[in-house]
Amino acid sequence: MPTEIAKQVLYDNVAIVGPGLIGASMGLAMKSAGLAGRVVGIGRRQVSLDTALRTGAVDEGSLDLEAGVAAADLVVIATPISTLHAIAPRVTGALREGAVLTEVSSVKRSVIRTIEDSLPPDACFIPTHPMAGSEQRGPEAARADLFRESICIFTPVASSTEAEVDRLERLWEAMGACVRTLTPGEHDRVVAMVSHMPHLVCSGLVEAIADRELPFAGTGLIDVTRIASSDPDLWVDICRNNREAVVKALSDLIYVLDALLGTVDRGDFDLLRSLLESSKQRRDALVQARSEARLGEEGEGEG
Amino acid sequence: MPTEIAKQVLYDNVAIVGPGLIGASMGLAMKSAGLAGRVVGIGRRQVSLDTALRTGAVDEGSLDLEAGVAAADLVVIATPISTLHAIAPRVTGALREGAVLTEVSSVKRSVIRTIEDSLPPDACFIPTHPMAGSEQRGPEAARADLFRESICIFTPVASSTEAEVDRLERLWEAMGACVRTLTPGEHDRVVAMVSHMPHLVCSGLVEAIADRELPFAGTGLIDVTRIASSDPDLWVDICRNNREAVVKALSDLIYVLDALLGTVDRGDFDLLRSLLESSKQRRDALVQARSEARLGEEGEGEG
Repeated sequence: MPTEIAKQVLYDNVAIVGPGLIGASMGLAMKSAGLAGRVVGIGRRQVSLDTALRTGAVDEGSLDLEAGVAAADLVVIATPISTLHAIAPRVTGALREGAVLTEVSSVKRSVIRTIEDSLPPDACFIPTHPMAGSEQRGPEAARADLFRESICIFTPVASSTEAEVDRLERLWEAMGACVRTLTPGEHDRVVAMVSHMPHLVCSGLVEAIADRELPFAGTGLIDVTRIASSDPDLWVDICRNNREAVVKALSDLIYVLDALLGTVDRGDFDLLRSLLESSKQRRDALVQARSEARLGEEGEGEG
Repeated sequence: MPTEIAKQVLYDNVAIVGPGLIGASMGLAMKSAGLAGRVVGIGRRQVSLDTALRTGAVDEGSLDLEAGVAAADLVVIATPISTLHAIAPRVTGALREGAVLTEVSSVKRSVIRTIEDSLPPDACFIPTHPMAGSEQRGPEAARADLFRESICIFTPVASSTEAEVDRLERLWEAMGACVRTLTPGEHDRVVAMVSHMPHLVCSGLVEAIADRELPFAGTGLIDVTRIASSDPDLWVDICRNNREAVVKALSDLIYVLDALLGTVDRGDFDLLRSLLESSKQRRDALVQARSEARLGEEGEGEG
């Protein structure tokens, strides 16, 4: 009996539109696991394509969007959201028959509306959101293991056929991710809470601290504010595309902070302790669950 | 010419009251750098003293507070703040002539008031705050390099003689810290902003996120909330002892978050971008300054 799962090519020709951190990491992950026959990176700048080629994230680079898309049986849009809105009709218009279109944006509803506006009636579109990343950008920051132990959220729509959703799930799982399914609306609300709002809070923390105070920051604050070093344009894009959910999430957080402030102000330290105890337990449980999932995976690998 | 600075014993007998994470790390750092002749750990539980002995953080453990203090020329109170308030008169009453008393609490004004209430007129007291730590506790988490590249804030008081402040600064610098001097009031305000408030915000972030949303957290959120896993009692203690400054710092942060929320709600994405750009630049500059300080230090070490 074989002790390893044989490599399986899931897509013969993959086109990655925008091989940046996420797109080039997908290329590296697919190629290192033998999941794609050929990976073409499509970009607007030759220098980015050259980096993706040099690191082995793609087999070929193309500046011609339509030609690159037309040759692929899996097309991944991995550009910033603003670029996706601009190029969507050119991508959907170039899809060949039977091709699957997916995208990896941090926001779903507005992106789905844009794609569906120009999607041919027989095309298969599967929106996904790999919740992995870094404050760095570009193909030079890409890693084959970026998605290991991460969550990839699928938000299937009317045109997402079951068979193709299954195949794309197998791809993500083979790249190390754990697939979860949500509706686009649920996705946008959940992600506003666990990602978009915390990002704004980290930036807010840095903004609230005066220049003369900042040099006294310890490693705790430097860790906490890591995601404040991300690209502002990317996050403005996200807030613009998930406005309602971000406003709701930030309001919820401010409500909790007002409550914490109240306990300190009133000297209600029993309530403060129980709030801090609750968040410690919930955060510890989250880290524990992740660590158990990791051990379980390693155990499987040994079998 | 010698290429290394000769080891120098700065204190013959050091007593560390409460050899937990900070106290035991001081023991390890002093002993590994040959800065102390003998280090005695004073605690209430034999098991903690045994751990500190086993890891080499102390040469001797003592359950007798007064006897341990009386034998030392440097006494370090490294207990939680609530314990410090409880034992301060017993420590100050046992100090031998010429001994230096220091403490390492995260809050200065309330701790200084407590110590000064019972300090003998001729005693030397130097309050300090090493801004290093971890979400872990206890002597088992101690490390000889915990203070490397960290800041130690000194808040000298009337009884802090210049010669003894100099000697204690040499100790902290030899343990790898960079010493900064503030008044006790400045310290409490600065630390509320860069440490106490961010801690409450991290706990608040976890609290604001619902159980069904938390499993979707990415590595960003897990990093951001690391300090929410700290000991709640420790942080209740800190908030209790630095109430006014914590309330002010949290109010300032909520004001900034309200402004960020407003930009998203109104769709003022130019203002949002400039706020995110500003916090990115300030955070990047902080990391850069730390990294340059580290390189400078390594360069010195080579000479």
